[in-house]
Amino acid sequence: IAKVVDFRNMPAFPGRKINSHKGMMGKLLCIGGNEQYGGAIRLTAEAALRTGTGLVKVFCHEASRQTVNNTRPEIMVETRTEQLQQTLGWSDAIVIGPGLGQDSWSIKVLEAALSHCLEQHKHLVIDADALNLIAEHQRLVIPQNLAIITPHSGEAARLLKVTATEVESDRYKAATRLTQTFKTVSVLKGPGTLITSQGNTWVCENGNPGMATGGMGDVLSGVLGALLSKGISNRLSALYGVCLHSHAADIAAQENGEIGLLASDLFPYIRKLVNTEKTDA
Amino acid sequence: IAKVVDFRNMPAFPGRKINSHKGMMGKLLCIGGNEQYGGAIRLTAEAALRTGTGLVKVFCHEASRQTVNNTRPEIMVETRTEQLQQTLGWSDAIVIGPGLGQDSWSIKVLEAALSHCLEQHKHLVIDADALNLIAEHQRLVIPQNLAIITPHSGEAARLLKVTATEVESDRYKAATRLTQTFKTVSVLKGPGTLITSQGNTWVCENGNPGMATGGMGDVLSGVLGALLSKGISNRLSALYGVCLHSHAADIAAQENGEIGLLASDLFPYIRKLVNTEKTDA
Amino acid sequence: IAKVVDFRNMPAFPGRKINSHKGMMGKLLCIGGNEQYGGAIRLTAEAALRTGTGLVKVFCHEASRQTVNNTRPEIMVETRTEQLQQTLGWSDAIVIGPGLGQDSWSIKVLEAALSHCLEQHKHLVIDADALNLIAEHQRLVIPQNLAIITPHSGEAARLLKVTATEVESDRYKAATRLTQTFKTVSVLKGPGTLITSQGNTWVCENGNPGMATGGMGDVLSGVLGALLSKGISNRLSALYGVCLHSHAADIAAQENGEIGLLASDLFPYIRKLVNTEKTDA
Amino acid sequence: IAKVVDFRNMPAFPGRKINSHKGMMGKLLCIGGNEQYGGAIRLTAEAALRTGTGLVKVFCHEASRQTVNNTRPEIMVETRTEQLQQTLGWSDAIVIGPGLGQDSWSIKVLEAALSHCLEQHKHLVIDADALNLIAEHQRLVIPQNLAIITPHSGEAARLLKVTATEVESDRYKAATRLTQTFKTVSVLKGPGTLITSQGNTWVCENGNPGMATGGMGDVLSGVLGALLSKGISNRLSALYGVCLHSHAADIAAQENGEIGLLASDLFPYIRKLVNTEKTDA
Repeated sequence: IAKVVDFRNMPAFPGRKINSHKGMMGKLLCIGGNEQYGGAIRLTAEAALRTGTGLVKVFCHEASRQTVNNTRPEIMVETRTEQLQQTLGWSDAIVIGPGLGQDSWSIKVLEAALSHCLEQHKHLVIDADALNLIAEHQRLVIPQNLAIITPHSGEAARLLKVTATEVESDRYKAATRLTQTFKTVSVLKGPGTLITSQGNTWVCENGNPGMATGGMGDVLSGVLGALLSKGISNRLSALYGVCLHSHAADIAAQENGEIGLLASDLFPYIRKLVNTEKTDA
Repeated sequence: IAKVVDFRNMPAFPGRKINSHKGMMGKLLCIGGNEQYGGAIRLTAEAALRTGTGLVKVFCHEASRQTVNNTRPEIMVETRTEQLQQTLGWSDAIVIGPGLGQDSWSIKVLEAALSHCLEQHKHLVIDADALNLIAEHQRLVIPQNLAIITPHSGEAARLLKVTATEVESDRYKAATRLTQTFKTVSVLKGPGTLITSQGNTWVCENGNPGMATGGMGDVLSGVLGALLSKGISNRLSALYGVCLHSHAADIAAQENGEIGLLASDLFPYIRKLVNTEKTDA
Repeated sequence: IAKVVDFRNMPAFPGRKINSHKGMMGKLLCIGGNEQYGGAIRLTAEAALRTGTGLVKVFCHEASRQTVNNTRPEIMVETRTEQLQQTLGWSDAIVIGPGLGQDSWSIKVLEAALSHCLEQHKHLVIDADALNLIAEHQRLVIPQNLAIITPHSGEAARLLKVTATEVESDRYKAATRLTQTFKTVSVLKGPGTLITSQGNTWVCENGNPGMATGGMGDVLSGVLGALLSKGISNRLSALYGVCLHSHAADIAAQENGEIGLLASDLFPYIRKLVNTEKTDA
Repeated sequence: IAKVVDFRNMPAFPGRKINSHKGMMGKLLCIGGNEQYGGAIRLTAEAALRTGTGLVKVFCHEASRQTVNNTRPEIMVETRTEQLQQTLGWSDAIVIGPGLGQDSWSIKVLEAALSHCLEQHKHLVIDADALNLIAEHQRLVIPQNLAIITPHSGEAARLLKVTATEVESDRYKAATRLTQTFKTVSVLKGPGTLITSQGNTWVCENGNPGMATGGMGDVLSGVLGALLSKGISNRLSALYGVCLHSHAADIAAQENGEIGLLASDLFPYIRKLVNTEKTDA
């Protein structure tokens, strides 16, 4: 029942306007990178930059600052919790989760971000440990009609209070239930990633087994966040972003092989694809 | 009324003399990179190196040292405030502002730099938070006839005590007023960057919407500082540097696309352009 | 008596299955990188990623975290000793030794890893200082039939309580004795690396003098660990991994020269070789 | 009276022997990188690796460890002063000076290195601040017939107790006096670098104004140290190394331009040149 989507049949990326300046190209806040986990949010942030967000700021633990910033000086970094509210306010959209961890810092930051998005009607991507925390803590609530959630099977199972095997046995059903339960656009990652919004399910035709490597999900959440930050709808961001990410991986694998493909290998291909001229479908 | 300038019609970059040594190629001091903001001055410093300054030193907060130095060991770094006077004295020209922040460290360092330039008749580029601080604190005064200032619309508005909308509604007038008020060469950044010196206004024909991304201004200030450090006049540095920076972005965008272009992507193109042989115009 | 093995005559690398996800592609734990020695385990970890392990985690000293993580965000890092047991439990296979050092931290970590592998029947690669510690401390025992050990001549001599000259004078005998004494697969590194398992000895025909440079052994241990993490047998991992590593160095040397070849130069060639289609031999 | 030397007329680099291992390819210790000055010794170390030393260790200040190690994990790093004697003992040759600074740590380390080389008849390169300290402190004595010194004009002037202008006015005489006074091979850097040994002076024909940029001298000292570590004589190391370094810069400048050439841009060209087959002259 899922409709097939393929990047090669999708419309071109909306080009930049001539009188653009960096603030108009989107301001994305990426939240994660707790102590010991700086690498994940580093990947998210560069993915967003390469997808074309004008400004990307990372809110992370001070211990992760250098991992995030040293090899990519274009990423802005904020680590002071007393600046969190102001930093949330600065953003056009938010990604939360990659490397967030599950300690008290994580919960505090996640709670603040969820509240902020609810109050400000701001769109956000919720990924990784943010989903695990939400599954576990009742007071952490996904703001309705504002979020894209991006669980893999295990995270989906925790959100739905079922087993991962149950999710795997009927992925279509699991994805649909996620959207219905949480009033979100849901991206259920895996071979044949499913995207669901109210009443619709798509399956992404792009992608390859080489994507089964650490950090690939972090890159996806950055791509999605970048699209949200430009004011693109959750549904279109999810459809376009999932296919873009997977198709970039396909080209990277074709050029240098599926095995040993790393998440950051996708960056040049993402940039290439968002700049491809296409006839609007 | 603004004259059009285009890198492709400008004279060639002045070549190096055969008996040059590194001290003769210019010594540029880049000041900024407060705690949490190391990336900006990192971009400025490499831009200056790629534009051909012989020696580039960064004065930054100790917390930013590794962000500045770890991936570009050719940059010298000084973080000790007790060495600030000596470091100022070492330089042929100064860039101040990228990642400077607005705390007490920022003010102290900016005040010292402005005094030093005034006393020594040293040329400088003033950018970003340095402009914001000057707009706010009366005792921080731009030394007359020595500076290039590089505001975007918001910073220009703060300096002129008007709104950003007013600046945007007549950019030509705003740029002219900046030069008249502060006795500077002014670079009003944006689509169609304006350069003004006493009695003259130019508009840069180079550039593209892909430049609306974080760090592009930091790169520009490094290019301008490099030119100043070689003894080139403020007016010519501003004209040549703005067009060089924008034309480098044009080539980078032509080769790999406007969207997802990052500030540091410009470095190889800057180097390429300063080495291009041209018939002197 | 040693059989000759050559990468060019070996079967193709087992491809990824279509319905793979990252946990199924192998989870490898790389242990080492004590204070002052972060570089070694950094090399091991990326080698494993480029050989195709789905997830690579490094357990190292906190002082080495940034050296391991900052230029390769795909590597997960854990530095908290209270998390060691859980981290051991997470893994499918283990590499221990590169940059491990020989202090109390080293011994404690090594002892825990050896016990864990013995209890869990988990396969592991033992390299470098882990071998030196085992040679010196009676209570550190290699778990039988689970390990690949990768000594150079000096480390082999310490394990066998003979001199390095004795090892060098009959490398075949030394390799055989290592396997018999410790019930391992043994890789005796050097020009003409020997691989021995119970009753068999092979000599690797690939390789070149350019490999005599720091970090080459760290890369080898990562390659071997990656193969183990995918459930490939110790014997086949050793044969395939040693030849893969040496052949990658041969191609790297052919392209850019033997002299000045560095260990990390091998990464793209490793990836290339594991993706090469071959007729199964 | 100086003989002209040119890399293009020099014999080929001595190739590696088939039965080499990394310890036989030379062990070079690079000493420098005081607090605030990590970049310089980082450049020296990679230059040595790319010239073909088997093992390179840096002894530096703890504050510089990450700058040295994070982007080049093949470099070993030692920062503990209590390990200095052992580290000196490990080496086949030493480079001292790049980023050494002039504080008490600098003096202590330099004194130890000079004593060690004198006692062990070990060859060394003395550069940068090590030369400044020797010029200033009588008890710091260059061990006779063991060192290559690599001053620029200012450092030469300090060593000879004359002005830089006097050095510049007769560079040939200054170079000769350095060799006579200190019983060294002397490399007087500048346009037309001079190499002198007892009774002989050469002028290097290679090189270009693009080399007048920060860090070029640090790279040269690494090249020279690498050659010493392989047992090549001081005189031949100086002749071959100076020309190799300058010719690498010439090729780099031809390919991408003199202006904006950075010191680390030379690494691939150095590797290329040491691997070039030539008919022995």
